[in-house]
Amino acid sequence: MPRFDTVSFLSDYGLSDEFVGVCKAVIRQVAPHVTVLDICHEIPPHDVRAGSLALARAAQYLPNGVVLAVVDPGVGGERRAVAVEGGDGESYFVGPDNGLLASAVAMTGGAGRAVSLTNEEYQLPAPGPTFAGRDVFAPAAAYLCSGVDLLELGEPIDPLSLLPGILPLTRAEDGKLVGEVLWVDRFGNVQLNVDPEELAPFGDAITLRFGDQVRTAVRAHTYDELGPGQIGLVVDSYGLVSVALARRSASDELRLEAPSEVTLEPAAG
Amino acid sequence: MPRFDTVSFLSDYGLSDEFVGVCKAVIRQVAPHVTVLDICHEIPPHDVRAGSLALARAAQYLPNGVVLAVVDPGVGGERRAVAVEGGDGESYFVGPDNGLLASAVAMTGGAGRAVSLTNEEYQLPAPGPTFAGRDVFAPAAAYLCSGVDLLELGEPIDPLSLLPGILPLTRAEDGKLVGEVLWVDRFGNVQLNVDPEELAPFGDAITLRFGDQVRTAVRAHTYDELGPGQIGLVVDSYGLVSVALARRSASDELRLEAPSEVTLEPAAG
Amino acid sequence: MPRFDTVSFLSDYGLSDEFVGVCKAVIRQVAPHVTVLDICHEIPPHDVRAGSLALARAAQYLPNGVVLAVVDPGVGGERRAVAVEGGDGESYFVGPDNGLLASAVAMTGGAGRAVSLTNEEYQLPAPGPTFAGRDVFAPAAAYLCSGVDLLELGEPIDPLSLLPGILPLTRAEDGKLVGEVLWVDRFGNVQLNVDPEELAPFGDAITLRFGDQVRTAVRAHTYDELGPGQIGLVVDSYGLVSVALARRSASDELRLEAPSEVTLEPAAG
Repeated sequence: MPRFDTVSFLSDYGLSDEFVGVCKAVIRQVAPHVTVLDICHEIPPHDVRAGSLALARAAQYLPNGVVLAVVDPGVGGERRAVAVEGGDGESYFVGPDNGLLASAVAMTGGAGRAVSLTNEEYQLPAPGPTFAGRDVFAPAAAYLCSGVDLLELGEPIDPLSLLPGILPLTRAEDGKLVGEVLWVDRFGNVQLNVDPEELAPFGDAITLRFGDQVRTAVRAHTYDELGPGQIGLVVDSYGLVSVALARRSASDELRLEAPSEVTLEPAAG
Repeated sequence: MPRFDTVSFLSDYGLSDEFVGVCKAVIRQVAPHVTVLDICHEIPPHDVRAGSLALARAAQYLPNGVVLAVVDPGVGGERRAVAVEGGDGESYFVGPDNGLLASAVAMTGGAGRAVSLTNEEYQLPAPGPTFAGRDVFAPAAAYLCSGVDLLELGEPIDPLSLLPGILPLTRAEDGKLVGEVLWVDRFGNVQLNVDPEELAPFGDAITLRFGDQVRTAVRAHTYDELGPGQIGLVVDSYGLVSVALARRSASDELRLEAPSEVTLEPAAG
Repeated sequence: MPRFDTVSFLSDYGLSDEFVGVCKAVIRQVAPHVTVLDICHEIPPHDVRAGSLALARAAQYLPNGVVLAVVDPGVGGERRAVAVEGGDGESYFVGPDNGLLASAVAMTGGAGRAVSLTNEEYQLPAPGPTFAGRDVFAPAAAYLCSGVDLLELGEPIDPLSLLPGILPLTRAEDGKLVGEVLWVDRFGNVQLNVDPEELAPFGDAITLRFGDQVRTAVRAHTYDELGPGQIGLVVDSYGLVSVALARRSASDELRLEAPSEVTLEPAAG
């Protein structure tokens, strides 16, 4: 009995190989009623942190169903392959237990039941252990959509034993705020782990220090209100402060990348 | 009552971030019956001209439904967010009013009714104004598919007030034809804004001038009939003249890119 | 009467242009009930060998239906456009007759009936002959899904006349094994055309020679059990031997690319 009709899929498989297509083919064989929604497959190879952050950014917009996430440098080794019930009871998360899923699961209210994907009846026979997306994770996602119970897929594990995610926090230091770069998007906007509230006491002109650079930025509402050469601090679409230029890449021009540390303070008057 | 089951989607969001996936998730939440057809998401960042041309090339092949197009350097600023009825009554276009939609709309016979997307009831609450694809455009596309009337989405605007597209024309000069590069495709074929009819008087061998280069090209029917090192002028799949080499990139080898000017004339002798 | 609901699609069209989107739009116009499953579109331009290998890797996982594959440097020229029935009677292959389809067709038990796609009633009128994916192949795939008989699409041809694929074989030479690189994946793992059985007599430490390099590699079960700097020979997800490093690109670090020749022998001592 079909239970869900959407698998939302994120990975570091890239699109230059057939990895993503093969996972979708496997899902379609098991659960032909399912639509796969591609979140992103160009997470940098093996970058669990970047994958976890992208998944967390997307999570609140995803439809009910199964979230399949694979950034898995330890594939075939000691790390567990898991499926986790979201706290809302309306979603499942399938992937490696390496912190990738943690922030997104937390956004549902925390993990409910969880299993280690050990039941080979719900897996593909694999010539080698290196493509768990195809052989373990995609089948699990598809069977969950088809109505197979979570506990059929493997042995129950303690949700508290799941590896937590990393959520870098800002810190205050001598009236300065020390943050870090979470993400550089395609347009070169540089998202910091800084809440706009934290900048409220600092006024409209703010000094940024990173690497050996010292730059002055201004608070702005949109990218396009920035003058040429002006560095902006814009509240981005996820409600965090980002460093931006108008119609150019702030990351390229300032040589500012994840996960650099950035110190913010009021610009001297 | 569902009205359309396809959203055709073009953007400059790229595939390295989750932007496209999140827009699709939003559409799926509002209108789960809809299939999103990806036209292209690798339009160069902020390149409205390139996006407009790609959309116009694709437009005649798209199924009835909603066309969602987002290349939007002015996001959150003064430019209007719009939805426009195609002249055929069988399609809607949703995107920024910056010229991006104009050529495709014109191909339907011109704009019918149009609205500025000002009704926040059909939008997502947004922490910041920088991701209108997610918060404004994708919901509008999905609601149109679900049968919400265009006029529900915002205030009517005069279709004549929509920003026109740019359609670069060739010009004749002393028996020469001056054109420009519209597009370089993945294979390095260089599409000009030149109709094959315009070359009819020029014969089979044609001199090309661009930058500081002077090259001789021959008219050819297919790429593969060109000899090694021979430059061809081939009528491409959109009926325009393109500069091509056999199995190599003409753009790379001739250093010829959009929107360079190219002058054509009959080859001497 | 719909016959299939999946078109599995591989090409070298890339994702930076609208080629793939337009082919999908054409399929959707002819056969709206069809889901297109993207295998991969980033096959290097014109690289029939790479496309053929990717298709063969994916083939066994694809659902019943039509496989549409387009890597077609000879487009518009002498090569035939074909549709081929798989030996299992449950799949059709549509693409150029240039070897691209051969390995995948062979995996179904060999070609059944085949036609040259000459019936223009099942094609789009084309301004130029350079986009057969849109004008010839995508419509053929869609009509096959809609229940149109193969023999309606063009003239029958002898399946034995189809161009065979290239399957590079290893050879033994003075107790050494000479293989070649089939594929480098996104993670830089280097797949050889070597079956693990062939290495059985060689022990756990193996000398690799390629270009002007001589390196020692060890047999390993997973990438992650390799030490830093250790070169591994891992049985990959297709059951072939691949050269790998832990969490880094073996291809980049060893400068080893397809289709380089690699000689393997037991490491001395």
